[in-house]
Amino acid sequence: MNMDAPNLPQVDGAVDLHRIKSAQTATPITVAMGDGIGPEIMRAVLAILDAAGAQLATEFIDIGERVYLSGNTAGISAAAWDSLRSTKVFLKAPVTTPSGGGYKSLNVTVRKTLGLYANVRPCISYAPFVASSHPNMDLVIVRENEEDLYAGIEHRQTDEVYQCLKLITRPGCEKIVRYAFEYARSHGRRKVTCMVKDNIMKLTDGLFYRVFEEIGAEYPEIERERYIIDIGAARMATRPERFDVIVTPNLYGDILSDIAAEMTGSIGLAGSANIGEHVAMFEAIHGSAPDIAGQDLANPSGLLLAAVMMLVHIRQAHVAQNIHNAWLRTLEDGLHTADLTGPQAEQTLGTQAFAAAVIARLGQLPQHFQPVSYQNRAAEALSNKPTYTRKPPALKAMVGVDVFVHSADDTPDTLAARLRGAADTMHLQMITNRGVKVWPQGFPETFCTDHWRCRFIAPGGDASVSHRDIIALLQQLTEHGIDVIKTENLCTFDGVIGYALAQGQ
Amino acid sequence: MNMDAPNLPQVDGAVDLHRIKSAQTATPITVAMGDGIGPEIMRAVLAILDAAGAQLATEFIDIGERVYLSGNTAGISAAAWDSLRSTKVFLKAPVTTPSGGGYKSLNVTVRKTLGLYANVRPCISYAPFVASSHPNMDLVIVRENEEDLYAGIEHRQTDEVYQCLKLITRPGCEKIVRYAFEYARSHGRRKVTCMVKDNIMKLTDGLFYRVFEEIGAEYPEIERERYIIDIGAARMATRPERFDVIVTPNLYGDILSDIAAEMTGSIGLAGSANIGEHVAMFEAIHGSAPDIAGQDLANPSGLLLAAVMMLVHIRQAHVAQNIHNAWLRTLEDGLHTADLTGPQAEQTLGTQAFAAAVIARLGQLPQHFQPVSYQNRAAEALSNKPTYTRKPPALKAMVGVDVFVHSADDTPDTLAARLRGAADTMHLQMITNRGVKVWPQGFPETFCTDHWRCRFIAPGGDASVSHRDIIALLQQLTEHGIDVIKTENLCTFDGVIGYALAQGQ
Repeated sequence: MNMDAPNLPQVDGAVDLHRIKSAQTATPITVAMGDGIGPEIMRAVLAILDAAGAQLATEFIDIGERVYLSGNTAGISAAAWDSLRSTKVFLKAPVTTPSGGGYKSLNVTVRKTLGLYANVRPCISYAPFVASSHPNMDLVIVRENEEDLYAGIEHRQTDEVYQCLKLITRPGCEKIVRYAFEYARSHGRRKVTCMVKDNIMKLTDGLFYRVFEEIGAEYPEIERERYIIDIGAARMATRPERFDVIVTPNLYGDILSDIAAEMTGSIGLAGSANIGEHVAMFEAIHGSAPDIAGQDLANPSGLLLAAVMMLVHIRQAHVAQNIHNAWLRTLEDGLHTADLTGPQAEQTLGTQAFAAAVIARLGQLPQHFQPVSYQNRAAEALSNKPTYTRKPPALKAMVGVDVFVHSADDTPDTLAARLRGAADTMHLQMITNRGVKVWPQGFPETFCTDHWRCRFIAPGGDASVSHRDIIALLQQLTEHGIDVIKTENLCTFDGVIGYALAQGQ
Repeated sequence: MNMDAPNLPQVDGAVDLHRIKSAQTATPITVAMGDGIGPEIMRAVLAILDAAGAQLATEFIDIGERVYLSGNTAGISAAAWDSLRSTKVFLKAPVTTPSGGGYKSLNVTVRKTLGLYANVRPCISYAPFVASSHPNMDLVIVRENEEDLYAGIEHRQTDEVYQCLKLITRPGCEKIVRYAFEYARSHGRRKVTCMVKDNIMKLTDGLFYRVFEEIGAEYPEIERERYIIDIGAARMATRPERFDVIVTPNLYGDILSDIAAEMTGSIGLAGSANIGEHVAMFEAIHGSAPDIAGQDLANPSGLLLAAVMMLVHIRQAHVAQNIHNAWLRTLEDGLHTADLTGPQAEQTLGTQAFAAAVIARLGQLPQHFQPVSYQNRAAEALSNKPTYTRKPPALKAMVGVDVFVHSADDTPDTLAARLRGAADTMHLQMITNRGVKVWPQGFPETFCTDHWRCRFIAPGGDASVSHRDIIALLQQLTEHGIDVIKTENLCTFDGVIGYALAQGQ
């Protein structure tokens, strides 16, 4: 490996990390040593990779605390971006975000900037060698990583009402769902479970589920299953052994993957991958644990299993398999770091000694656990998957507009009267408050905020409207002193209504 | 009790449910017998209430399957609404929604129409008498029940992008948070935990947390705690004994309450309350289980504990306490219905025999569990809590507008050029795609959908804009053939920016 980073921490003597691999056979990767326990677990992992014969040409970048504190609010320099764009493979140790405002999450920045659309998190129990109340758990969560509420588009709209946009897109759904099925196929998994809330969110989560069915049909050997997220999360939290691969939108996946990781018994053992069309990032799921940094106490296993995922990704499947099996055998031999409690025959090792124990078992297979088996075709399947192909456009027709109004002084009836007095070119069909229809024929019990959604359609009912019609409506409302705060066009696509009816409509 | 419902199923002979209470002392309540196992568990519960001396004047309404199939898509008649509005207290057995489209969820309809803003769900383990992997679990989830993504406002906006609005309001937050703290105080609970995702959703979830801190400060004897929902859900799923009362927005509460109920070991033992300013509804959390209906197999415990919550609500705390303690004693005596597995000394009873066993223990206290103690002041505290008081308006200034554009043919640069060529009255500040800034200075890796958010501000930068300025902008864009699909005004409130900056801005 080529370790030419100027800030590289001192390396333990036992393994020569400075050996240079030939440029012909080595795959370039970018490595960040991170903060807190980052450098010591990365040293341990690089030592194991090296001993196992991984063919890597490493470029080291400096990210995290020192970069933040130098005045770079993103925590990552332009040179680091260049390395990531060049190698397209990123093995990352945990970093520390300094306390105090203004520092942006490095993970969010990397993920959004490089379009890492899939977060892949295997959650596996290692009972009886690691205590777990769910000994047969072995599932993988494939979480959409770019959209949903995490697009971060928020507006305060009135004195009382704040809004965040949940965006679900067809390309986003297609990419994550296809990734999940390709992952299942290439990793010998038999079932993919989709978790959504499409009984409530029929358009957004409905799209995710529809794409799941469409693309899943191309994988007839893989079972498809759907859960509503509330019931699905409850099942996963109590009977995780029922699940295999779970694919789900961003927010649900965020919650599910934290639950699943914690249920395995130790978040110190889990690695994750963030996959994009161009670049992939591999890391442990735990943080930088500055309280135990530099004491040779930290568990390198999470980062090691992330590195195993990376090796599969770059088609060094044999090396990945060798390391993974040696690591399982090490656990079985009762050797572990101080964070775990294990069987009676246990022996607690420091970070580097644990790495040496794994190295000593390279070439051995686990006796209790099923040995893992990786093949390069897994990576090929994943890297050859089709990128998104834009569909031909539907025939879009505009049939009305939802106009949102800020008013603290109106009742539904007074507002309806004001709107109808102001607007004579379009027809007021209904008013809702927090989604509940309050006009016409509302219920007296409905609590009303100062935020009203007023649905206007063409006077004829099912005629279409133009942008000019909507602008004319906004002019009339403005002239009558109505405080319009936002609009949402109502459209049909190939004749299918593209908006939800109101509760009670 | 007054049971004058025409469709009332036959009642077992042992207990005379037809005894009429004097109108002076009895509290009117509305009762629905429901579908599937509903009638038999409701009969069992009413028998226990009667034997314990509950002073109830019952009005029976017909809801659910028969009403749906008669052509009423809401499953509830006008006469039933009248009863609910009159008694303001609803004890409801589970109902069956017929399969096939067009039938609306009765629970959603009742909740939204009557403004039942708080869903209250105690989740308690009864180990060792009911098997549970979390024997010390005793928490209450207080879930906001009206807003969030469940307002159901969805729009398909382009060929590729679908949107759902998440609405979080100050009155909604104040009502649910105050309810949670009043509940904690009146039920002798010591801690309220708020779960939100305000590190990502700083405006919406940020408001919920801010209100939690504001209102929580009025309850100095109650500890306040906050978790980010992903980590909080993981903690609850693995160490539920750490939690006491949890207050959370609608979607998170939906997921958490299903997880927690399933973790207790039996969803057949949980009741819930849906609380509004005017009306309250009490029910079991399980469904109508038509497969075991009419066989005297069903467990009436969930509905019974819901009825106990109802009795506290209507200030018959002594009766509630008597029933709850007798029920605990019954469990301890190893008596239960067929759905539970228990200790060796167990005896499996039918629905009505289980009710008789509870009745036989009225006046007895549990020996293993702590006896429950209810006082009427609990109900008084809750029913006297202040309703929402509208705040004085902030000084709102409009400073720009986010215009959303549908275009499949543009790159960020070509779109920016078209927008700047069309609009000369306002200044294009940035363009984002799924929340990621793509102009100016975007990253080449960012995947772009056909849905662009284009932020326009006043030419001077920090000057304010008028509704007429926005309309003029829309006119210019329309004249240049730009397909505007929605707008979001950008405002400051008392000088505080009321919108999120984009990632990378």
